[in-house]
Amino acid sequence: MAQQIEVRSRSHAELVDITAQVQQVVSQHGVATGLCHVFVPHTTAGLTLNENWDPAVRRDVLLTLDKLVPWDGDYQHGEGNSAAHVKASLMGFSHTLPVENGRLTLGSWQGIYLAEFDGPRRRRVWVSVFQT
Amino acid sequence: MAQQIEVRSRSHAELVDITAQVQQVVSQHGVATGLCHVFVPHTTAGLTLNENWDPAVRRDVLLTLDKLVPWDGDYQHGEGNSAAHVKASLMGFSHTLPVENGRLTLGSWQGIYLAEFDGPRRRRVWVSVFQT
Amino acid sequence: MAQQIEVRSRSHAELVDITAQVQQVVSQHGVATGLCHVFVPHTTAGLTLNENWDPAVRRDVLLTLDKLVPWDGDYQHGEGNSAAHVKASLMGFSHTLPVENGRLTLGSWQGIYLAEFDGPRRRRVWVSVFQT
Repeated sequence: MAQQIEVRSRSHAELVDITAQVQQVVSQHGVATGLCHVFVPHTTAGLTLNENWDPAVRRDVLLTLDKLVPWDGDYQHGEGNSAAHVKASLMGFSHTLPVENGRLTLGSWQGIYLAEFDGPRRRRVWVSVFQT
Repeated sequence: MAQQIEVRSRSHAELVDITAQVQQVVSQHGVATGLCHVFVPHTTAGLTLNENWDPAVRRDVLLTLDKLVPWDGDYQHGEGNSAAHVKASLMGFSHTLPVENGRLTLGSWQGIYLAEFDGPRRRRVWVSVFQT
Repeated sequence: MAQQIEVRSRSHAELVDITAQVQQVVSQHGVATGLCHVFVPHTTAGLTLNENWDPAVRRDVLLTLDKLVPWDGDYQHGEGNSAAHVKASLMGFSHTLPVENGRLTLGSWQGIYLAEFDGPRRRRVWVSVFQT
């Protein structure tokens, strides 16, 4: 059964590092070798991986997405947050990550990010771990 | 073994709701807790999740993608549908979704969409369900 | 346990066909029916599927991404390769693919590509196969 983690975004658009929270679920689960599935049950926030070192990377990713999909545009959706829906689809809503020796194994520079595009809000992420 | 569902798109670009068809495969499969993998074996159509309520969201997603990747451009591919290939890669071709109590569990506002970018056509989606 | 394949990109931006290498891991693994998970542990290269026939498709995908996310821009990341980070997030870092009769089953025109955006470099891809 998927375990839910709670994420709090603090800006309108933000890449929130959830690596430690996902790692904690993996550690508690006890699977030695397998995969970890992360899923965001929202439509204006997505999930992505990216560099965990220089915060300027996250800033550059967000600003580039903003240029590509401006908040104000010729949109018809009444809530006015169509840009967030598009950007979430561009990042994706589910990712699957390797687990070895009971730990999430990412690349040295990779972190897992909730990609908030219509915050600040409380968000949820569902994490499942399974043996392969 | 993956089960195939048939999808018929009716426009050149369209987000076709396939949630009920995927749910049907999950229900028939009998797995209580697990994951559902959906895969599109095409290169000019992709898969995405997004809001299932206001159809204007789908319209806004499609028009924004059209502005980003115009149909007419400096393309070399002889079939003239390079824009569709790019947009499909932006959406992705496979997604994995949570299953609980024998049912697909998505967020309240999420639907699963075949993202048609070179229709109208008959398309296929392969669905697998597995226990975790 | 994931098996590592080595990929060598030869240009700054390139879609490197890794289908045969992934197929080889699947064949050696011996799973008859299941799924194959591919993961790239990098942040300036991603993974995508697309047409394996006309090389102009790959060229068109890369040039379109270059127009959307130009190499030179108003970026703050000190290494100067922010465009590669954005493009990798747009393509994604993990995909899951169907396996039947001990072979990867893709659509007729689909190939699996490492999407290099800051090469030429040696890259790694981690491949896991599991029964469903």
